[in-house]
Formats: sequence, structure tokens, C-alpha cells
Amino acid sequence: MTTTPIRTLSASLDTGRSLLEPALRDTVGSRLNPEMRRIAQYHLGWADADGRPTGSWGGKLVRPTLSLLSARAAGGIAADGIAAAVAIELVHNFSLLHDDIMDGDATRRGRATAWTVFGVPHAILAGDAMVTAATSALLDAPHPGARAATASLMTATQRMISGQASDVAFERREDVPLAECVRMAGDKTGALLGCACSLGAELVGAEPVLVDRLAAFGEHIGLAFQLIDDLLGIWGDPERTGKQVGADLRVRKKSLPVVAALNADRTEELRALYLRAEPLTEAEVHRVADLVERAGGRDWARQEADRQLAAAERCLAEAGLADAPHAEFLEIGGFIVGRRF
Amino acid sequence: MTTTPIRTLSASLDTGRSLLEPALRDTVGSRLNPEMRRIAQYHLGWADADGRPTGSWGGKLVRPTLSLLSARAAGGIAADGIAAAVAIELVHNFSLLHDDIMDGDATRRGRATAWTVFGVPHAILAGDAMVTAATSALLDAPHPGARAATASLMTATQRMISGQASDVAFERREDVPLAECVRMAGDKTGALLGCACSLGAELVGAEPVLVDRLAAFGEHIGLAFQLIDDLLGIWGDPERTGKQVGADLRVRKKSLPVVAALNADRTEELRALYLRAEPLTEAEVHRVADLVERAGGRDWARQEADRQLAAAERCLAEAGLADAPHAEFLEIGGFIVGRRF
Repeated sequence: MTTTPIRTLSASLDTGRSLLEPALRDTVGSRLNPEMRRIAQYHLGWADADGRPTGSWGGKLVRPTLSLLSARAAGGIAADGIAAAVAIELVHNFSLLHDDIMDGDATRRGRATAWTVFGVPHAILAGDAMVTAATSALLDAPHPGARAATASLMTATQRMISGQASDVAFERREDVPLAECVRMAGDKTGALLGCACSLGAELVGAEPVLVDRLAAFGEHIGLAFQLIDDLLGIWGDPERTGKQVGADLRVRKKSLPVVAALNADRTEELRALYLRAEPLTEAEVHRVADLVERAGGRDWARQEADRQLAAAERCLAEAGLADAPHAEFLEIGGFIVGRRF
Repeated sequence: MTTTPIRTLSASLDTGRSLLEPALRDTVGSRLNPEMRRIAQYHLGWADADGRPTGSWGGKLVRPTLSLLSARAAGGIAADGIAAAVAIELVHNFSLLHDDIMDGDATRRGRATAWTVFGVPHAILAGDAMVTAATSALLDAPHPGARAATASLMTATQRMISGQASDVAFERREDVPLAECVRMAGDKTGALLGCACSLGAELVGAEPVLVDRLAAFGEHIGLAFQLIDDLLGIWGDPERTGKQVGADLRVRKKSLPVVAALNADRTEELRALYLRAEPLTEAEVHRVADLVERAGGRDWARQEADRQLAAAERCLAEAGLADAPHAEFLEIGGFIVGRRF
């Protein structure tokens, strides 16, 4: 999600990994058939294409770490949130697996994507197997909120799929209202992050208001992340690597700052460049970035990110957590968006 | 599934459609976003590619009809099984949607497949949306067995995915033991049919032994169907249409009669023809059919289908149902496999 190294997270959060890694390995090992397991293990980074252990781990496990914290925030221990954490991580990776096929992306996390290694049919099936395993793992948890938590996970998953579908559809549309683009980002990025922040609490049977406030915190963080990520996709950031300046413009992405600009007044030149069929030259990419900025897209996205972060803080305060989990939520939230609260 | 017309089902079973159609429309309408809904409605046959109602219906609704019957078999009324029926039909169609992409099939039920109309990305997402909606719909049912039924549906879905993955993997393998091929067919076809036969009962809180016997009945019916379908895929049947003689041999499918034959003694000629890279001539297709028959593949599949049907009858008897649901299960089972018990 961000390129900030994992070591910036405090040690207490990092210890979640010692719970998460064996639980994820166990779920993938026991619920997936050998072919699906091999693809999942490769995609998750534990194994190479032949199934040999890599000795490393793919993702940063931010979402499942939030789920463990969520269980603690509701008065449980981290281990109570394991089923929620495993389910969230599998749903997240199901979406990455299918997204890579849909986008035709050849690399992820510096490795060949699963569909390029195992073929499209098996990669589709492995995604299907992972979301199914996620649902089973959560539903089988012995905790009082297992049924409610699974229902929430499915609602978030449906929103994530809906957001992804809108994102794909936007590519072919000339006119995307800004509110629709914000909703898409909330669905695509916010819903699962909100679920990650609340699912552990819901699993251990927390009061609905606590579950709701934690979900709202995560959703606002997700939107802030998307806004900041979209800003980096146009203007980059010398302090962060990963995103090339102008990357999102070259592929004519309908990202939030661009849609904000396209919906402003007097954007004839921007529309003519951005909505035409022919590729943009390097000079035109810079011209588009300039036009988006002049139309107010950059300022709007920055201010909207600030508003989302302020809303996240408010929601977290309303959750009324003890000091330690409150501080840890803020720390992980800041880690996700790449700035301190 | 079979090409026997729906009118051969008795009127009492056909009335299930009056419950099912509105419930399915309502679930698709309320749980899927507009883009996903349009693809689902097209795939399910209710709408054309522009969303205009077709006034007809795609599938034969055999599986959801079994789920309604299953609720009645456990002492409920058909309406008690609606959530199970809707979930089963959506999971079935999720698998068809993704299968069509994986197989590159351009037509289904006489219409262009969804991925050819809406593109691969949206077709993948629509399948994802359908399985997620299925899970939500079942989990939200107010019945006592909603959680257990959802867990069973996920187990069956995982087996279905596993079977499909094995089927794809078999294409590239020279040696597939017969037991492995039977397990694949049980996973791919039997698991969801077993679930369809038991899910309504489980939803209304039936005793585990009843749920188990109904699931076993459906699983044996599913295997019998697959064996008979595989026989038709090689030798056809003048009384039934749809499958061309030799169809499965031309694409070198590792179907059950073929795998049985490949695992017999003295099959050098068959192996040489079937496992070579070059396409088969028409004369060679007939020669392969002949070699499979001589190696005992045809007889084995016929006898195994009979054994599965006998086992299905035994399981149903063990369920100890009242006369009416017992007779109706047999009637639908016979409808599925295309022969009377």
C-alpha cells in the first residue's frame, strides 16, 4: 500500500506477525486443495512457483494487524481476532489475484503475478478458493460474533467488488461525477479497511456502536490513503519511491484529483487531452498534471485527504477506546497513509 | 444439465418456480451494484445485454428446486428453503460464469457468454459478486440453521472449485489414476448437488443425520449424472440431443470412461493417440471411442452409474422421508440423470 518500510511500525504491533503467519499458513494449508494451495502460497510470497519456501512473506499484513488490534480494542486478546485477521488477509489477496488478471499486470511486489505463472484459469480459481476459505475460516470461529462478523465481511467484500467494477467502468466513461468517484474509492479501498478495523471487535461480540465507529475510522483512513495514493500517482513524492511521476496520467486513470479537475469549469484543454484515444507524449503528461493542478484537483485532493483523516480521528475518539489501542490505531492509520496524525 | 425438457417434471415441483423467480430477482436486484446486476441478469437469462427483460429464464432451476424440497423434507414449507435455493443457484451460476472464461466458451444456453459481451474483467467480478451475494443471502436468513447451512455451502463451494482445478490440471497430465478422476467428478459435480439436496433441511434445523443422508443422495446423483454425461460425450444418444458423438474425445477430455480405459492393461494404441499433441482426425476419433470401449471404459462407466444410482436410492431410504418428498427426490434425481429410478 505505501512504500514506507515495515520497521516504522512499533514492535508491539509487529508481534502480531508471530500470531498471523502460522494461522494464515494453517488456513491455506488445510482449506485449499494442493493446486490452489500452491498458487496461494506463491501469491502470498511464502513459496516460489515450484512450492519451495522462500523464507519470506509477501504483504505487510497491515489489514490483519488491524483486525487483531480490533479484538483487543473490544476487550479481547489479540488471539481472539485471529480468524478475522486471516479472513481479511485472504479476501484482500483474493481481490489482488483477480485484479492482476483484470488489469493484465505482469508483476506484483517485484515478482511475476500468479496468472502469468499458473495461467488465467488456475489464477481465477485460486482467487475463488481464497475468498471461500476466508468465509469458512471466519464462520467456523467459536466466538459469539462469528455469524455477524462473516455477514459484515461479505458486505465489505461486495462493496469492494462493486468499487472495482465502477473503477473498470469509469475507464470507458467521459463524465464521472466527483461524488460517484468518491463513492467508488470508498467501496474499493475504504470498505475492506473499515472491515479490517472492526472485524475483530465484532467477532468477540463488541457493542454495535463500537463496531460501527471502528469501521468508520478505517473507512476514512482508506479514503485518505486513496486520495494520497492518487496524488502520488500524478505528482510523485521525492521522499517516497514506488510511484513514478505521472504514472496514473499515462494510463489515463480516472483518479480522484483528475475527476475533481474534469468536473471543474473551463477544462476544455484537459478534457481534449485526457479523453482522446491517442497516447499522451511526455510533454503532454506534464501539461495534464499542470492542468489538473490549475483546475484545483491537487488542492481538493489534499484538503479532502485532510478532512478524511480528521474524520477518522473523530470516529476513533467516539469509539472511546483505552489509551493503548487508541494510540495503536492512530499509529497504523498513519503508517497506511504515510504521515503522522 | 440434461436436455430432457422441463415439462417432464411434475407440476408440483414446477410450482417451486413461482417462489424462486421473484426471490432470485430480488436478491440480484438488492445485493449487486447496477453493473454487476446487469451482467448477472444477462447471464441468468432474464435480460438482454442492454438490460431489457427477455421474458424468459435461463436455467432449469433444478438445484434450487431441490433445496425447496429439502426444506419440506425436514418438516418445513417450501418457502423456508428460499434462502438456500437462492444461494445454491447463485453459487452454481458463479461457477458457470467463471468456467466460461476459463474454458474460453463463446456460447451457453444458446446465447453469447457473459465475458464475450461484457469483457473478462467485468465477468470475473460478476462471478465474485454472485458468490458473495449467495453467502450474504443465506447467512441473513432468519432460520435456526443459517450459520451451519452457510458453512456447508462454503465447504461445497470449496470442493467444487477444487474439482474444477483438478479438471483443468488433468488436461496437462498423462497419468490420472481412476480414483483421482472419480474424486474430481465428485468434487466438481457431486458436492454442490449434494448441498442442494440438503441445504434447505439444514437451514430449517434438521437433524444432522437427515442432512447427511440427503447430501449423500445428491452427491451420488451428481456422480451418476457425470458418468452418464461423459458417456454421452463419447457415444451420444439418439434419444437425446445436445451432445455430439465424440465431442469430448475431439478436445481430448480426461473424462471418466477415458480415464478408466487409460488405466486398463494393453492401452498402448489408445495412449499414443489420445496423449499426442496433434489433433485427431474424424477416423481417429471413432478409433479412440472403439479403443475406450474395448478397454472396458464404456462398461465400467455404465456400471458405475448404476452403482451410484443404487447408492443414491439407499441414502434416500436411510433419510426416512415421508412418501411425497421421497418420491419427489427420486423424480428430480431421475430428471437430472435422464432416466427413471
